[in-house]
Amino acid sequence: MKKKKLYNIAIVGLGNIGCYLFKFLNKNRDNISNKNNSSFKILYVSAKNKHKRRNIKFKKNQWVNNFNNILKNKEVDIIVELIGGAEGPAKKLVFGALSNKKHVVTANKALISKYGDKLSMIAEKNKVNLEYEASVCGGVPIIRSIKEGLIANKINRIYGILNGTSNYILSSMEINKTTFRETINKAIKLGYAESDPSSDINGADVASKVKILSCLSFNSFINKKIHVEGIKDVDDEDITNANKLGYKIKLMGFSEILNNKIFQRVHPTLVKKSSYIAGVNGVLNAVIVEGNPIGKNIIQGEGAGPSATTSALVSDISSILRGNIKFPFAISNKRRKNYSSGKIQDLFFSSYIRLNVKDKYGVLSDVTKIFSNNKVSIKRVLQNPYKNKKKSSIVIITHRSKDNDIQKTLKTLAKKSYIIQKPKLLRIENG
Amino acid sequence: MKKKKLYNIAIVGLGNIGCYLFKFLNKNRDNISNKNNSSFKILYVSAKNKHKRRNIKFKKNQWVNNFNNILKNKEVDIIVELIGGAEGPAKKLVFGALSNKKHVVTANKALISKYGDKLSMIAEKNKVNLEYEASVCGGVPIIRSIKEGLIANKINRIYGILNGTSNYILSSMEINKTTFRETINKAIKLGYAESDPSSDINGADVASKVKILSCLSFNSFINKKIHVEGIKDVDDEDITNANKLGYKIKLMGFSEILNNKIFQRVHPTLVKKSSYIAGVNGVLNAVIVEGNPIGKNIIQGEGAGPSATTSALVSDISSILRGNIKFPFAISNKRRKNYSSGKIQDLFFSSYIRLNVKDKYGVLSDVTKIFSNNKVSIKRVLQNPYKNKKKSSIVIITHRSKDNDIQKTLKTLAKKSYIIQKPKLLRIENG
Repeated sequence: MKKKKLYNIAIVGLGNIGCYLFKFLNKNRDNISNKNNSSFKILYVSAKNKHKRRNIKFKKNQWVNNFNNILKNKEVDIIVELIGGAEGPAKKLVFGALSNKKHVVTANKALISKYGDKLSMIAEKNKVNLEYEASVCGGVPIIRSIKEGLIANKINRIYGILNGTSNYILSSMEINKTTFRETINKAIKLGYAESDPSSDINGADVASKVKILSCLSFNSFINKKIHVEGIKDVDDEDITNANKLGYKIKLMGFSEILNNKIFQRVHPTLVKKSSYIAGVNGVLNAVIVEGNPIGKNIIQGEGAGPSATTSALVSDISSILRGNIKFPFAISNKRRKNYSSGKIQDLFFSSYIRLNVKDKYGVLSDVTKIFSNNKVSIKRVLQNPYKNKKKSSIVIITHRSKDNDIQKTLKTLAKKSYIIQKPKLLRIENG
Repeated sequence: MKKKKLYNIAIVGLGNIGCYLFKFLNKNRDNISNKNNSSFKILYVSAKNKHKRRNIKFKKNQWVNNFNNILKNKEVDIIVELIGGAEGPAKKLVFGALSNKKHVVTANKALISKYGDKLSMIAEKNKVNLEYEASVCGGVPIIRSIKEGLIANKINRIYGILNGTSNYILSSMEINKTTFRETINKAIKLGYAESDPSSDINGADVASKVKILSCLSFNSFINKKIHVEGIKDVDDEDITNANKLGYKIKLMGFSEILNNKIFQRVHPTLVKKSSYIAGVNGVLNAVIVEGNPIGKNIIQGEGAGPSATTSALVSDISSILRGNIKFPFAISNKRRKNYSSGKIQDLFFSSYIRLNVKDKYGVLSDVTKIFSNNKVSIKRVLQNPYKNKKKSSIVIITHRSKDNDIQKTLKTLAKKSYIIQKPKLLRIENG
């Protein structure tokens, strides 16, 4: 497809983000056109309900009731998908658009992380762009940086804080000394969490982002194997303990290549208070790229919300306006690799383990013996008796050990009669 | 110029960086070609001295004694300038290359910050790319991020730690409690500073980078007015004082638009220990962009050295290989603006002032009266008597005051007989 002088855009999905983008494009049309040396027009908008109250004004002839009607419309060059969800209308729209040789801009991480490979095949075959900067940490231009600014690099590890809601909750629990439940309710009230925040809290949102970052970083196909733990089991006691030991707790996503295998994981992580990542608080996101020759590179910004997402969407639209067709995953599909997946059990971590135990003679001795039997060496122990004095919590920081050995240790411990509650494991990032 | 299947590159300048780039391009040729969907060849190399010892091997027919011979060579598509310096051969090469319709990639901040506007005119007229990512903080892909990833944003402020050598020196003085002189000598020995580190230390290097970032961020022509102070007057006593008061000292560059004027400045700056910027230590660089709609965005990485610089150079070469011609300063020259320049005297700062005084009756009272007469209000005072008891240092932290009033205060103080040494002013960044 040759570069055109005027690109016609259709925006499908008019929630908060769609409306913000609509207004922003109208207001900044000249500036965006000038920077990209070609112009655009919002030809159509479409959403489920025409009469929902919105703070935007579109013309009568801009509205399309059924987006199927624009899929084959020759006038439309770019379709911006803001419906959301990996299936249903979003899937139909994006597959339909690319198949009809239209460029696609999407903020849909669920869709890209699930169907990205198939979509990329269609885009490459039809010589159109599939752009998805807004799907991973809106205000952090990480997708474009991997594809362009850091293009020279062989990336071997990418990780960070990839979800603003969970980071807000953990930061807020620490600062305000509130429980997980109290904090969530407050976050929903303040608009920092959706009314159903489950995908933010259970790690699914981060997992989608990790999968997208992995295949971009490693020039591989999307790898669906990923270890995912959310933050719902992190309680205020863990945050207090971590604090005493010099750590903060963050929900982090990691992807790395080790021995030619991709290891992907999402879990609450203890990081040293003095580390950079410990200072990334509230709704901020941060992505850290480790590669050669660059060493370590950090990009930090607001992760979500209409303004940050619009910054990413406009960057994607601009990429199309500049007229060069790019491989959706940085390299031709025929050159993308298939790595096998590594298991978290084979990785080595220093770990935080919390045991709630009956306060009786010989418990600590038995506990430490079980660690030793499983080849897990203990670095620090913190024992806090609870006020009622019939139970106490034992916090153990291990030396770097194989995750499998730690998990075996916890399994053995869980069967002991003095253990009151399922032992808790949080991994420590020392990088 | 249309996208070609094979781009011929000439590298001029074969110091550490030129040699690293030469090896990197040869080793990663397939990968870089695949990602950009077109190939390249290092057709020529050139440098002052053919027989200097280098750790690279080039073929006989790759060597060119005089780069003038390749300027008109129709085969050459891209010239990579790694000579350095704003004048002389580097200037001749880059002007000559663009005039002969060759793409240019350069790491030369002195040249771009001085002649960037003229060079940009030639590049735009001849439809070739002038790429200079490597000229500002090598491992921080800030140029491309402003042009592409953050393209949607109206930037109103850009600042950060832009020089690795000076940051290393200040970090090292703090950690090792060494004097400025001792630290510099150590830095030279370790290779973190050049044998003549003056442009790193006197702020000139940061000033060039600020000018380049300004015009990119604000879509303006290069603005040559800039307030520049280096770090040579920061001594270990200031670092100790700052530490006591909860601050660290960093050499920072700032550019911002206020009331339609551009304010550019480089100076040692006190930042709160808990701030992000305080944690950017050693040779790291960090750039912070404040804009709309993005809010605040941070990019951090290694600032200099052959590997980080090569990452930037390859990103620039890739940009050319992808085949789309871009405006060197993000927007057509005919749309770039001319802002007038603001003066630092008109800005407001909380400031750190250190006075070395004779230890006698009434001094503090006279000092505080002078502050008050100049409408500068004092927030904190720290008085340290020196061991010999005949003099002491008075450290004053002011409330936010007009810089002009602070400077007037210092001028009056400088004339007082009890002042032993020129009063020292360091500005505080509270952002």
